[in-house]
Amino acid sequence: MTRLSVGLIGLGRLGRVYARDLSSRLAETRLVAVADTNGALAKEIAAEFDVPRAYDRPDELLHDAAVDAVVIVSPTHTHRSLVIAGLEAQKPTFCEKPPALSLAEAGDMADAERRTGVFFQMGFMRRFDPGYAAAKRQVDEGRIGRVVVFKSTSRDPFPPSLTYADPKSSGGIFIDMGIHDFDLARWFMGDVASVQAVGAVLAFPELGTVGDRDNVIATLTFSDGRLGVVDLTRNGCYGYDISTDLLGTEGTIRVGYIRETPLLVMTRNNVAHDTVPYFMERFERAYTLQLQNFAQNVLRERPAPVTIHDGVEALRVAVAATRACDTGMRVDVGGVAAERV
Amino acid sequence: MTRLSVGLIGLGRLGRVYARDLSSRLAETRLVAVADTNGALAKEIAAEFDVPRAYDRPDELLHDAAVDAVVIVSPTHTHRSLVIAGLEAQKPTFCEKPPALSLAEAGDMADAERRTGVFFQMGFMRRFDPGYAAAKRQVDEGRIGRVVVFKSTSRDPFPPSLTYADPKSSGGIFIDMGIHDFDLARWFMGDVASVQAVGAVLAFPELGTVGDRDNVIATLTFSDGRLGVVDLTRNGCYGYDISTDLLGTEGTIRVGYIRETPLLVMTRNNVAHDTVPYFMERFERAYTLQLQNFAQNVLRERPAPVTIHDGVEALRVAVAATRACDTGMRVDVGGVAAERV
Amino acid sequence: MTRLSVGLIGLGRLGRVYARDLSSRLAETRLVAVADTNGALAKEIAAEFDVPRAYDRPDELLHDAAVDAVVIVSPTHTHRSLVIAGLEAQKPTFCEKPPALSLAEAGDMADAERRTGVFFQMGFMRRFDPGYAAAKRQVDEGRIGRVVVFKSTSRDPFPPSLTYADPKSSGGIFIDMGIHDFDLARWFMGDVASVQAVGAVLAFPELGTVGDRDNVIATLTFSDGRLGVVDLTRNGCYGYDISTDLLGTEGTIRVGYIRETPLLVMTRNNVAHDTVPYFMERFERAYTLQLQNFAQNVLRERPAPVTIHDGVEALRVAVAATRACDTGMRVDVGGVAAERV
Amino acid sequence: MTRLSVGLIGLGRLGRVYARDLSSRLAETRLVAVADTNGALAKEIAAEFDVPRAYDRPDELLHDAAVDAVVIVSPTHTHRSLVIAGLEAQKPTFCEKPPALSLAEAGDMADAERRTGVFFQMGFMRRFDPGYAAAKRQVDEGRIGRVVVFKSTSRDPFPPSLTYADPKSSGGIFIDMGIHDFDLARWFMGDVASVQAVGAVLAFPELGTVGDRDNVIATLTFSDGRLGVVDLTRNGCYGYDISTDLLGTEGTIRVGYIRETPLLVMTRNNVAHDTVPYFMERFERAYTLQLQNFAQNVLRERPAPVTIHDGVEALRVAVAATRACDTGMRVDVGGVAAERV
Repeated sequence: MTRLSVGLIGLGRLGRVYARDLSSRLAETRLVAVADTNGALAKEIAAEFDVPRAYDRPDELLHDAAVDAVVIVSPTHTHRSLVIAGLEAQKPTFCEKPPALSLAEAGDMADAERRTGVFFQMGFMRRFDPGYAAAKRQVDEGRIGRVVVFKSTSRDPFPPSLTYADPKSSGGIFIDMGIHDFDLARWFMGDVASVQAVGAVLAFPELGTVGDRDNVIATLTFSDGRLGVVDLTRNGCYGYDISTDLLGTEGTIRVGYIRETPLLVMTRNNVAHDTVPYFMERFERAYTLQLQNFAQNVLRERPAPVTIHDGVEALRVAVAATRACDTGMRVDVGGVAAERV
Repeated sequence: MTRLSVGLIGLGRLGRVYARDLSSRLAETRLVAVADTNGALAKEIAAEFDVPRAYDRPDELLHDAAVDAVVIVSPTHTHRSLVIAGLEAQKPTFCEKPPALSLAEAGDMADAERRTGVFFQMGFMRRFDPGYAAAKRQVDEGRIGRVVVFKSTSRDPFPPSLTYADPKSSGGIFIDMGIHDFDLARWFMGDVASVQAVGAVLAFPELGTVGDRDNVIATLTFSDGRLGVVDLTRNGCYGYDISTDLLGTEGTIRVGYIRETPLLVMTRNNVAHDTVPYFMERFERAYTLQLQNFAQNVLRERPAPVTIHDGVEALRVAVAATRACDTGMRVDVGGVAAERV
Repeated sequence: MTRLSVGLIGLGRLGRVYARDLSSRLAETRLVAVADTNGALAKEIAAEFDVPRAYDRPDELLHDAAVDAVVIVSPTHTHRSLVIAGLEAQKPTFCEKPPALSLAEAGDMADAERRTGVFFQMGFMRRFDPGYAAAKRQVDEGRIGRVVVFKSTSRDPFPPSLTYADPKSSGGIFIDMGIHDFDLARWFMGDVASVQAVGAVLAFPELGTVGDRDNVIATLTFSDGRLGVVDLTRNGCYGYDISTDLLGTEGTIRVGYIRETPLLVMTRNNVAHDTVPYFMERFERAYTLQLQNFAQNVLRERPAPVTIHDGVEALRVAVAATRACDTGMRVDVGGVAAERV
Repeated sequence: MTRLSVGLIGLGRLGRVYARDLSSRLAETRLVAVADTNGALAKEIAAEFDVPRAYDRPDELLHDAAVDAVVIVSPTHTHRSLVIAGLEAQKPTFCEKPPALSLAEAGDMADAERRTGVFFQMGFMRRFDPGYAAAKRQVDEGRIGRVVVFKSTSRDPFPPSLTYADPKSSGGIFIDMGIHDFDLARWFMGDVASVQAVGAVLAFPELGTVGDRDNVIATLTFSDGRLGVVDLTRNGCYGYDISTDLLGTEGTIRVGYIRETPLLVMTRNNVAHDTVPYFMERFERAYTLQLQNFAQNVLRERPAPVTIHDGVEALRVAVAATRACDTGMRVDVGGVAAERV
C-alpha cells in the first residue's frame, strides 16, 4: 500500500499522541515532518518517533515538498492562518477542533476551502469512537424509532489551567469543551434552531477571574422542533465521563463508559471499580481511527465525512450558547452573526 | 404498640397500594375505613383488605369517629377541599402529590393547615426511597463536598391516557410528573430562583390535542446561584427510569436503577437484563416507608418532614417551568403569582 | 377469599420473618398460633403480630383445632419429629430446609408423608426468587439451548456462630449452606450421579475446632453426564452474594445480584455501590412468595412443587459432597446409604 | 533509545498481531525478520509491515546476524526445537504459551536455558493485562487480606477447528486453554499440590471424535492447603469471557469484563450491551505490553518475570488435570512424571 506522507503541526499533549499514531500505529501513513514553534520540542518528538524533519516554523513544513498532507493540532488561535496556508499550498489538511475562536475566522477557513478546492477534514474524534459510531449506525437503521431528544454530558476530571481556560485562548467552556457535544447533536439530529443556557462559576472560583465558567447547561431546540440538552462540568472529580442518551420513540441508546480496567474490588459493603482518567484514554482508539480515516480519504480521494461546515456550525451553536448564558435569553442560532466572540 | 386508625380516600391504582400497605404491611396502622366516589369499588377494596367501613362520600369518612387520621390519594382536583375538610375535622392528614393544580388552591390548603394547627404531611415518596435517602445522608455528611449541580431525569414507559393527561386534570407534564424532580431539587439544593424550559409533542401527537407535551427540559438556577436541570419524557419505552445526579466539588452521587430481576441473559454478542416496569415497582418500598413515617409522626407527635410548604414550592417551580416553556422566557419562580394555572 | 389459618413453629431469625409474612403480608393466610420452646419469645412475637395463641410446646400447637396448616422453621434437628407429628395430626405442613441432618431422619419424614397422604411442602426459597424463577422459565423455553454446565456460588458475609456451625447441629457447610445450591442443581439439571469435593478451614480457624470448614468446592456429574460445580465460602466479607450460571449450547443465563440501593458514589478514580447485607434482604420476596405458594397450594388442593423427595435428594448430594471432601475420592450419590452423617 | 532488532517466527493469527506490535506499536523494537514455513505468507507479512527479511526456514532467521532477539509464536509442537536452537544461537528468546505438548519437551527447553544461560521469557499475556496486573498489585498490598480461594473461568465463544483441537497438536482443552488459568493460579497462589477434574463432550460432539472435551472443571489444592477451581468451556456463545475471583479474608477481587463498546441499547423491557468478541480484542493491550516488557528486559538486562519454570509448572498442572479427568482420581501434581502426555 502507498502510505500518505504526513506533516504534523503542533506537538502539545495531543500532538504527541498524533505523532505516535501517524508514525507507528497506522499502516496508511508516514510521519515525515513535525513542526512546533518550540523548536526543541519538535526535535525531541522527531527523535522519539524517527521523523526525518523537525521545523520550528510551521510554514516551512507547509511548503516542504516531502509533505503530502498536513495535520494541524496547534493552539486554536493559530488554526485559521495555518489551515488557509495549508490549503493554499495544495496540501490536504486535517484540523483539530474547534475550527477557530470566532465565526469570522472559521468563515475565512471555509472560504479558503471553497476557493482552493483542496481536501479539508475537521477533527471531531467522537464520531470515530466505536461506541458513538455503533450508536449512529443503530439510529440510522431505526433500532430505536425516531430519535426525539438528544442528551449529552461531558465531565472533565479537573479544571484547565488558567492560561488555557482564558476565553481569549480557549473560547470559554461552551466552545472549548461543548463543541464536541454540539457536533454530536448536529450529527445525530441536524441543525440547531435556538439555544437557552445557564452557567456559573461554582467549583473553581479562579476560573471566574479569567471570565470562564465551570458548570453550564444548554437546552437545544433543533430546526424540526426536536429537543436537546448539553451539560458540561469541570468538576467531574471521579474521572473523565462522557455520556450521551438518544431518546427514541421505540427505545433509547446510551453511549457512556467510565470504567478503565476490568477490576472490581469488593470490600465490606462496597463494590468499586476505577474510572477512565482522561480523554486520551477514553478516546484513544477514536483518535487513531480518525487519523486513519483522514489518510484513507486522501489516498482514495473520498470526500471528508466531517467538513469545515460542520466545524463552523458546531462553533455557531457554541457561540449562541455562550451568548444565551451571558444574557439569560433564548438565542436563535441562525441569527448569530459572524462576529468575533 | 398502639396502631393508628387510618381512613383512606381515593382507591385508584395507587389507592389500592396504600390500602394494602395500611391494612397489612405496617405494624403502625389499621385501615378502618375506605372511601371512593365509586361506591362499588370502595366495597370491593374493603372486602379484599378486611376494612370494616366503606364510603362513597369521602366527607362521611372524614367525620367517622373511628378514623384517627386520613390518607388522601384521590384525583388532584379534589385535594383542596378534602384536605381542608380533613384538617377542619381535626384529623391528621396525609395528601399525595401534587398538592393541587393551582397555587391558589395549594395556598388555601396551606392557610387551612396554619389556621387549624392540625398535622399535615405532603406525599413525595422519593424522599423515602432507600437510594435517595442514602444519597441525602451522604450529601449531608459531606461525602462529595458541596453539591453544585443537580440533574434529574424521569422517564415514563408509556404516555398517560388522554383523560388523565389533560392539563385541566393533571396540570400538564411539569406538574404531574416533574413535581417529583422539583421536590428533589428543593430537598437537595434549596429554593429555585428562576427557570428556563423547552418542551414539545414529539412522540405522541394525541397528547398535543389536549394541550400537554411529552418531552420537556427545564434548567434551574437556585437562589444561591447553583444550577440544575430536569428532563422528563413519556417515551421511556424500555421501562420506568428515574435517575438523579448530584455533582459535588469532591465527587458525584448517582441514584438510578433500571434492572428488575437479578437475571442476565447472554446470547450471541448480547448481554441483556430486564427493566423496572413502573413506579409502583420502583418505589414500592418508598411508598410503604412513607406511610410508616406518616403514622409514626402522628403517633409520636413528631413534625412532618414534608410539609404543605414543600408542596406549594415544588408546585410553584412546576408552574414556573410550564410558563417558561410556554413563553420561551426565563421565569422568576418567586414572581409566579398565586393564580390559576 | 378464605384465608388459611396457619400455626408457626420456631421463632428465631427466620421465624420472625415468617411471622410477619403470615400475619400481615399475605392475603391468603392468618397467623393463628405461634410456638417456640422459648415461651417468652413466643408471647413476644404473638403480641407483636396480634397472634391469638402462643405456645411453648410445639405439640400443643399441632393439636390446636384452630390451626389448619403448620409452618416449621425450628432448628434442623427438630424437623423430623415435628414434621411427622404434624402430618399425623393431619395438618398440611411446610418445613424449612434442610429436611434433617441425616438421610435416615429425612427418610422417616418421607415415609410419614407417604403413609399419611397429608400435604407436605419442602422449603427451598430460591426457587421462588423472581430471578431464579425467570431463569427457570427461560431455560424451559429453550432460550439458551440445552444447559450443559451448572455453576453456583454462595458467599456468606461472615461465619456462623460456633454453636450454629457445629456439624452436629448444622450438618456442616455442605448441608447447611450448600443444600440450596444442590437443590438448584437438581431443579435445573436433574439428579446428580457423583460428586468430588475439596474443602478446608482457611479464614476462620475456630470453625475447625468444631469440625466444620469455611471454604469448599464440589464438582458434580449429573446422571446424564452433564457437569456442575458448587463453591461455598463463609468469607464473602463484602456482602451476601449468591450467583448461578447456566451454560447452554446457545447462550448463558446468570442469576446474581449484589447491589442493595440504587446508589453510586463516584469519587477520585472510584465508583462504588453497596452490597446486599444478608439472605433476608436478598430473598425477602422469595420467602414471601414461597409461603404464599404454600398457602395457595393447600387452599386450592394443588400438589407441592417442592417435595420431601426434593429435600431428601438435595441432602443426599450434600452428604455425598461431605464424604467426598473427607476422603478425597469421587462419591457415587446413589450409593450414599441412609446412614447418619 | 536503542531499539531491539527482533526476528519473529510463526505468522498465524497471533503472529500477525505480534508483527504489527513489533513493527509499529513499540518504541523499543524493530521487526527485522519474519519466518514461516509458508514462505508466501512470510513475504506477505514482510511487505505489509516493511520487514526487510522474510524466511521460509526458521533456522535461517535464528542465524541471521541482524536478529538480536527472537519471538516464537509457531505451532506448539515446534516450540522445543526452535527455542533450543534460538538459545544455542545466543539469541534472547520469547516463546508463546504453552511451552510444549509434553513435560519431557518442556524439560528439554528448561535444560537448554540452564545450559546456555541465554535470556528466555515465557509468554503468558494475562499477567500483563492492566486488570490482572492491578489485581496482583492490590493483592500484594494486602487490599483483601490473605487470598484463600482462587477461581478462574475461561469461555471461548466457539470451538476450535478439529485439526487444531486434536490433542496431538493442541494437547487438549486443559493444556491449550486451561494453561492460562493454571499460570494465573500459580502467579497468585503458588504451586499446586493436587488436582481433581471432571470433563465431557457436551456441546460439540465432533470434538469427541478427536479425543478432546468441550467443558471441564478442575479443583486445585495448593501446596499450603488453599483452594482453587478452574472451569473451561468452548460454548461461551455470547462472546469471549475470562473472569477470575480472588477470595480473601478481607475482601474479594474480581477481574472480568465482557462489554466491548460503551453502548447500551434499551428497548421494551430489555437493556443490552455487546460482548468482547475474542482473545485478541480482550487482551490486545496485554499482548503489546508483554512484548514491550520482553524488549525492555533484554535491552536493560533485567531477568524475565515469566520463566520456562513457570511454563513447565503450569503445563504440569494441566497434565495433572487431564489425567485426573481421565481417571476420576485426585492426582498429585508433583508426581506427574516428565512423560509424554
